[in-house]
Order: sequence, then C-alpha cells, then structure tokens
Amino acid sequence: MEERTEIASLGEFGLIDRLTSNNEIKNVSTILSVGDDAAVIDHFGKQTVITTDLLLEGIHFDLSYTPLKHLGYKSVVVNISDIYAMNATPTQIVLSLGFSNRFSLEALDEFYEGVYAACDQYGVDLVGGDTSTSQKGFIISITAIGEVSPDKYVKRNGAQVHDLICVSGELGGAFLGLTILEREKKIFNETGSQPDLEGQAYIVGRLLKPEARKDIIEYFAEEQITPTSMMDVSDGLSSDLLHICKQSQVGCVLYEDKLPINEEAKEFAYKLQLDPTACALSGGEDYELLFTVGQNDFEKIKQNPGISIIGYITDSSEGKNLITRGGNKHALVAQGWNHLK
Amino acid sequence: MEERTEIASLGEFGLIDRLTSNNEIKNVSTILSVGDDAAVIDHFGKQTVITTDLLLEGIHFDLSYTPLKHLGYKSVVVNISDIYAMNATPTQIVLSLGFSNRFSLEALDEFYEGVYAACDQYGVDLVGGDTSTSQKGFIISITAIGEVSPDKYVKRNGAQVHDLICVSGELGGAFLGLTILEREKKIFNETGSQPDLEGQAYIVGRLLKPEARKDIIEYFAEEQITPTSMMDVSDGLSSDLLHICKQSQVGCVLYEDKLPINEEAKEFAYKLQLDPTACALSGGEDYELLFTVGQNDFEKIKQNPGISIIGYITDSSEGKNLITRGGNKHALVAQGWNHLK
Repeated sequence: MEERTEIASLGEFGLIDRLTSNNEIKNVSTILSVGDDAAVIDHFGKQTVITTDLLLEGIHFDLSYTPLKHLGYKSVVVNISDIYAMNATPTQIVLSLGFSNRFSLEALDEFYEGVYAACDQYGVDLVGGDTSTSQKGFIISITAIGEVSPDKYVKRNGAQVHDLICVSGELGGAFLGLTILEREKKIFNETGSQPDLEGQAYIVGRLLKPEARKDIIEYFAEEQITPTSMMDVSDGLSSDLLHICKQSQVGCVLYEDKLPINEEAKEFAYKLQLDPTACALSGGEDYELLFTVGQNDFEKIKQNPGISIIGYITDSSEGKNLITRGGNKHALVAQGWNHLK
Repeated sequence: MEERTEIASLGEFGLIDRLTSNNEIKNVSTILSVGDDAAVIDHFGKQTVITTDLLLEGIHFDLSYTPLKHLGYKSVVVNISDIYAMNATPTQIVLSLGFSNRFSLEALDEFYEGVYAACDQYGVDLVGGDTSTSQKGFIISITAIGEVSPDKYVKRNGAQVHDLICVSGELGGAFLGLTILEREKKIFNETGSQPDLEGQAYIVGRLLKPEARKDIIEYFAEEQITPTSMMDVSDGLSSDLLHICKQSQVGCVLYEDKLPINEEAKEFAYKLQLDPTACALSGGEDYELLFTVGQNDFEKIKQNPGISIIGYITDSSEGKNLITRGGNKHALVAQGWNHLK
C-alpha cells in the first residue's frame, strides 16, 4: 500500500520546510530565497521581466490522467515560456499552492519533484511562495521572474511589413494529446477499459510534459538575431499570430504547407478524422515560440532546423490570410482556447 | 435591480481590456506593463524584492460579509505589507483571479475598484496577471514586487541581545472584527436578524480594510533607523515574534502592559469574555510591523507615537517570556492562525 501522510500533521511551517529542504540556489541574482517575508533579487543592471499564470484543476488540467510530477514540471514550463517569449532568461519563480485534504504529503512531494526538475532543467531558483488548504481542488499559481539586457526584450507590437513569420518546433501535438486522453478517459468511465495509448507517446508527451524553448533564445543571442515581435504559442497559432498582427497593426500571409506538423501527430489526426492543419492552427498549449524577423536575418534563421519560416507580414490593408495547399486564400480566424467559456 | 453582465460575453481578452482600461502607471521602474507575455521592470541599481500570497474563498475570506471592493483592497495590502516588512518600497503587483460563473462582470469591476484604490494609495502599478474561470469559489493570487537599496533589506534573523522589540499601531483588532462578523453571521443564519455592528466600526475596519505601514518604513528612512530584524504581524504577535527569535537564535522578554491595544477593541473583548492580551498575542491579520532595533535608536523610536516598545531581546538560554501585569513570567507560546488546520 502506498504511504499516506496527512499534510495537517506537519503544520504550515513544517510543510514549507519539507517542501523546500532540497531547494538549491543556482543564480547569483538570487540574493535571499525562501524563509522571510519576501525574496530579494539583484539583476545587476539588467531589467527584470515578470509574468504569472494560474492553473486550476478541472479547468486547466485533469488529475485523472495527469501525473502530479508532470503537472509540477509543466506549471513551471508554461510560466518560463512567457519569459523566453520576451527574449529574456528566467531566473526565479515563486509558487503558491492550494490543495484540499484529499491530497497527501506524498502527493505534494511528487508535485514538487516535477517543479524542482523543471527548475534544474532551466536553471531557475524557487525563491518563495504560499501554501494553503482549499475547499476543493488543486490550485497552482506561479510567478516567473527573468532578466534581460536593457531594451533587448521583444514585444508583440514590432512586426514590420515584409518581415518573415517563424515558429519553433512542431504544432498541434498537445491538442491531439489532449484529444486522445479525453477520449480514453471517456471510454474508461463508460466501459472500464484501460487506456490504449500505444504509439501516442509523442502527442501525449507534448501535452503532459511540454518544454520551453530556451535553445531558441540562446540561438538568437549567439547569432545576434533580434526578433521584431515574439510570443509563445499557448492559445493556438491563429489566435496568437492575430495578436501580433493586431498589436503591430499589420497583416500577414501564412502558408498551410509550411506549418510544421509532426508525422505521428498527422497520422493520429487522420485516424480521428481531424484536419492536421486545423489542429496546428487552433490547438493550444504547444509552447513554441512564434516570432517575426527582418528579411536580412533569413540566412541565419534558415540554418536552424528547429525553426520554420511559415509566412510573412503584409500591410494591414491586405488582411490576415492563409494560403492553402491548393493555392486558395482564406481569412485567418482565431479559434484559440478560451478558458472563460 | 442590479445590472448583471455575464463575464463569458466579453471573452478573455475583452475582460482583460475592460479590467485594465483605467490602469495608470505611476513608477518609472515600470518599463512595460499589461498586454504582453510578461511585464518589464527596471529598478536601476536597486535590488528587487518579491513576495506572493494566495487568498481562497471559504479559507481566507467569507464573501457573505466581505464586500468585494474591500477584498480587492485588502488582497493588495496583505502582499505589499510583506514588502514593507523587508524595509523595501512596493512598486508593482501582478494579479491572478479565478472565479466561477456566479460572479458577474459588475462583481469583478467592484473587486478591481478596490485593487486600484490600494494601488493608488501605495503608489503601486498593476503590471500583469491572469484570469480564469474556476469550478468553485473566488481565487486570488497576488505577487508583489518592490525595490530596496542594495543590502538595506531587513531579514528576520538579525535580532541581537539587548535589542528593543517594537511594534507599530495596535494589535488584536482584526481578530475581534472577525469574531463579531462570524457571530453576527451565525445569528443571521439561525434567526434572520440583521447584524448589529454598532460601535464596532474600528474592529470591523481592522479586519476588512487593513492598511500596510508605509509610514513606518518612511520614518525609518528619514530618521536613518535600520531595524536589526523585522516581519509583519500576520499570524499573531506571539507566533511572529517566536519566528524572529528562532531565526535570530535569541530569546525575548515581552511586557503585557506594553502591548498596544485599542480601547474600543478592549471593551469589545471584555463583552465577549475574551482576554484582550490573548487577542493581541494570538489574533492574526493585524498587518502591523514587528521589529527590533539597537538601544542606540531608543530616542528616535520613542518620538514616533505610532510605535510601541514592547520588550527586549535576551540570550536564547533565557527563553521566550511574557511578563504579565501582575509581574508573573510565562513562556510565550505560538497560537497563531494555521490555514492548514
């Protein structure tokens, strides 16, 4: 039988001690960490970048098919992905957690294992937080802090006419992973059959254990590329690209045949009678970087196999369009995730 | 009839636009605010201080007697109180909110009115956040950022033998406010009688609309006082002072007759057959500053009527003691709030 320790048996301070006992500091910018009213950070002349995300059970994740360790890892990744999307380097996080008494100390340990694994992977320090019981469900709030050389950060509003539209990695996988997990959950609830995830490791992994594109930001620094605009793909490519167009007051042309879609994902989409292009355009949670660069960076971008050039920026009067494989032009529409619906 | 607009009718981005449309930037350190993947802050050579708090309906607040505007105000105050407790100045906050569909747009507007009122009062910028539906209840997560001159921050571990123990303002009021509101709620639920809060404005105000002690930090700067240790009184004086003693590896003597307790609070405590001293020692949420200073700062501290000297630091071998009005010595025990119980 698995061990189960009631969290209340430790008290709040005992719990914090336990969860932070293996916390290692990796950044010189972390002056003071967990254990006081607040943490102290010194970015020594660099600018500080800050972002926050709230993740709620039943809304953003389903614990019936999400291992807590993966959830801890992903919670960190989705936050630092926003820091990379500013062309900045994540350095610290603070983490608040709410949990009902159905969670044991061992369950929290598992969640924190994932948190620390992500902190190690990305060189980030956990410097503070808050823990509380909740009446219902698991509540995660993370704020990530990063640093960037003054004025080197990249906003969403700098895309210029003729700029190339680029995206890292592959799109649509996380959405397909969610689709199969939801399908298998339904089958399990109705028939009791165990999930059949054979051959679906790629798409399930894209949903449950996404990575943030640290390597792309490092490539920009090495090659001295400064994107004109950037954001991470969390709502879906269409929705996110329309944001860049709106904030930059430009139009765009996107090519269906340039969209990077993994072969395994494509096959699975066909099996489910889904259009892989629609999955790539509207599926969320890919956490890839969507950015624009000037044409003079074309050669540098082309050399990186992890980056696809998928279109270009036009004058706003030309609208926002998708050129299909067959050569037809369609207006790009946002069908991104909306957690308010 | 009150207006009720469903939040889903705006969509997530419409909601964010609405809630941040009157957001004014007050600090030069706020380089980039709401509207991108992350905010950008530049403290120009100062160090950055960061703290976070999670506030959950049914655990930390009860909406049956907490107006949403007050809740918005208090949510900001409890966070920036932690920044002041580091001897730092709050400059920015990020705010995440989860709410079920029982909340209307008008309700969120009211909450944000309180948030902005606190931001105005304390000169803080709201620079980012996240909004989401929740399955149940109102979820508030705030991270506050502040600045401090390098190494001017005050930790909990610097108290020295012979230091004076000081506290700002008055203690125990918030606990008594909570007691009366819980009592009136119970009476209302059982009998339908409207609450009788006559003469209780002070204690109810201490609970529902606390203030953070910006003035004390400013006084320290003017008078060139650097406390040797400091924290804010959120769990209760005993519990918080024991933290300082533990982290500083010292003991303490506290005088019952020096504890600052408001007259109105005292009278109400007697009415309820509660010991005002116990309320001051163990009642939480006062958000006053508890700190220690060297004896050479005695004259400066004495001049400020908002500060009480309540005891002194001893060698750890002497224990942590309370000297009662009658001259008896009792070991100080922590009976602070524990949200895990």
